[in-house]
Amino acid sequence: MGEVTARLDDLPLRDDLRGMTPYGAPQAPLPVALNVNENTHPVPDEVAGDILDSIALALRDVNRYPDREFLALREAFAEYLGEGITADQIWAANGSNEVLQHVLQAFGGPGRTAFGFGPTYSMYPLLTRATGATWVAGTRDDDFTLTPESAAAQVAEMDPDVIFLCAPNNPTGTPMPLDVITAVYDASRGMVVVDEAYEEFAPHDEPSAVTLLGGRERLIVSRTMSKAFAFAGARVGYLAADPAVVDALRLVRLPYHLSALTQAAATAALRHAPVMLGMVDEIVAQRDRISATLEALGYQPHPSWTNFVLFGGVDDPAATFRALFDRGILIRDVGIAHHLRVTAGTEAETTAFLDALASLGSKS
Amino acid sequence: MGEVTARLDDLPLRDDLRGMTPYGAPQAPLPVALNVNENTHPVPDEVAGDILDSIALALRDVNRYPDREFLALREAFAEYLGEGITADQIWAANGSNEVLQHVLQAFGGPGRTAFGFGPTYSMYPLLTRATGATWVAGTRDDDFTLTPESAAAQVAEMDPDVIFLCAPNNPTGTPMPLDVITAVYDASRGMVVVDEAYEEFAPHDEPSAVTLLGGRERLIVSRTMSKAFAFAGARVGYLAADPAVVDALRLVRLPYHLSALTQAAATAALRHAPVMLGMVDEIVAQRDRISATLEALGYQPHPSWTNFVLFGGVDDPAATFRALFDRGILIRDVGIAHHLRVTAGTEAETTAFLDALASLGSKS
Repeated sequence: MGEVTARLDDLPLRDDLRGMTPYGAPQAPLPVALNVNENTHPVPDEVAGDILDSIALALRDVNRYPDREFLALREAFAEYLGEGITADQIWAANGSNEVLQHVLQAFGGPGRTAFGFGPTYSMYPLLTRATGATWVAGTRDDDFTLTPESAAAQVAEMDPDVIFLCAPNNPTGTPMPLDVITAVYDASRGMVVVDEAYEEFAPHDEPSAVTLLGGRERLIVSRTMSKAFAFAGARVGYLAADPAVVDALRLVRLPYHLSALTQAAATAALRHAPVMLGMVDEIVAQRDRISATLEALGYQPHPSWTNFVLFGGVDDPAATFRALFDRGILIRDVGIAHHLRVTAGTEAETTAFLDALASLGSKS
Repeated sequence: MGEVTARLDDLPLRDDLRGMTPYGAPQAPLPVALNVNENTHPVPDEVAGDILDSIALALRDVNRYPDREFLALREAFAEYLGEGITADQIWAANGSNEVLQHVLQAFGGPGRTAFGFGPTYSMYPLLTRATGATWVAGTRDDDFTLTPESAAAQVAEMDPDVIFLCAPNNPTGTPMPLDVITAVYDASRGMVVVDEAYEEFAPHDEPSAVTLLGGRERLIVSRTMSKAFAFAGARVGYLAADPAVVDALRLVRLPYHLSALTQAAATAALRHAPVMLGMVDEIVAQRDRISATLEALGYQPHPSWTNFVLFGGVDDPAATFRALFDRGILIRDVGIAHHLRVTAGTEAETTAFLDALASLGSKS
């Protein structure tokens, strides 16, 4: 090819994209990466072997298009969720971002609004705008909690078409009580998406919003295999909802959006759900250790039901981020003043983070 | 979950989706499936083994998010395309449909128009509308060919923001000469997408539109691994264009849209491109055999540079489709009066189709 002279501004790009920069958590090859809430434990060898066997089978007819309805995978998700959920209530896509994109394409889009209580997952407004809808942000109390009364009042006032409830909330870790969800549902006429990306890290006796689905046809509970399942690289998100919602999503998804390899890998991983989730308790223990140690160091960790901790009391987040970076440890500045966020890693990674932070000097 | 009572109409679905039905080529488990232009030859065992080894490696850190920029895969595509193409000119996604969706999200969308010469690939209008733009159809001559003059005049009159040139054309098989492409480019101000999904089935000495990229920053050449590469189940489409175009697509793609397993599988497959493409000549031979036999049977096959043949002279396409279906052979009624489309399969599949069609009685 000849010389390349074009710049982005030379192209007939959409006006609303001009000046934008792509989404991107900083990617840096540091020894201890605790920045994007991954599960830092690899998939156990025994499970990886079975996943590979399933992929080998799928490769035998990879020359054919995959099952457009990914029925085996939907059945596996339904069985995993329990609560009487059936395969016709399940949808899946390449990561929960694509699942949420499908929801917005079906129920949001031009002329409509989507809503969430900030600070919350930074992709919600990006996905909303990318599908042509308008993002409207509600507010939380100072400690990032929400009461049913406040949540319902804000939703009633804004009357959005799609509502995102991140439960527990990213980037704050805050639990989302079921009575907030039902209050929002009752106060709304739009679709209510409960994003349970981190649900497996909540206390085991706390019910999921999946238990609320019966009789609520506008309720959607989304999940991911990226976190507790240690499967971020495989890109598998899913949701449970009324079968009519799944019918709606079928209208907007690209044909054959889930590859045969993805379907095979995820279905195999779900056969080993207890093993795949075996590290969850260990991660929760490290999370609680982070919170306790941060408090001892004089920081203000926020209560978390996730695999990460948001902590306040950081005088200069950029300086602390950089000091940790220089020690080989990558965490996340999520843009909340005087706060940083850290993922609970393995015991060794967690120790490395806590020791490095302590070496910067105690806050108390 | 309790009783399910909702219907699609009970949900706050977007108005423009009401009454729609999902895209879907009929899926039927028939012995001879020649309906969706797959490569009916499986991936050779030697290649499948290497792909599996690469996936096994990727599984080792599948707990981490994949390389958002899929650099190794982009380098592999650049090397495969040759012509001096570099990795920064390459984009890829989960099937060429997602590649085209990204193009429409960046350069189409609400208030803009996309254009193609009908009859052409049925997903173009669906993708266009799904991203909020308006579809405008141009016309071809009676034999589905296009002259540079006619193509340029239509484009100049319509002044579209995105132009799709399916080269060779689906569902007709018609070649698209390079002088039509350059005429359209010169007559337009929008993005010109040359969809070369079937390019590998064209005569080997015919140049690809990739040779036109130098100095044409609005030109995009899209490809897929679904056809010649026998990789439809893996969902890998890609494109080559000016690096500025790739920058634009980065603004609209979902973060981590390509899984680590997809990246590993596709990169491994490309290492074996000559073997993966080894069946192309055999498929082309079957395609030409189909055309010759159809003509002998009194049908009118259209010239094809693809792995399928569109043929006219069918009195009652629905009846012929059904008669073949009853004999275990699935082909495609693409909605063109008195026409049907058939994929060139293996020699045995092709024989089964031709024998079954002949048994319905000669047309001449």
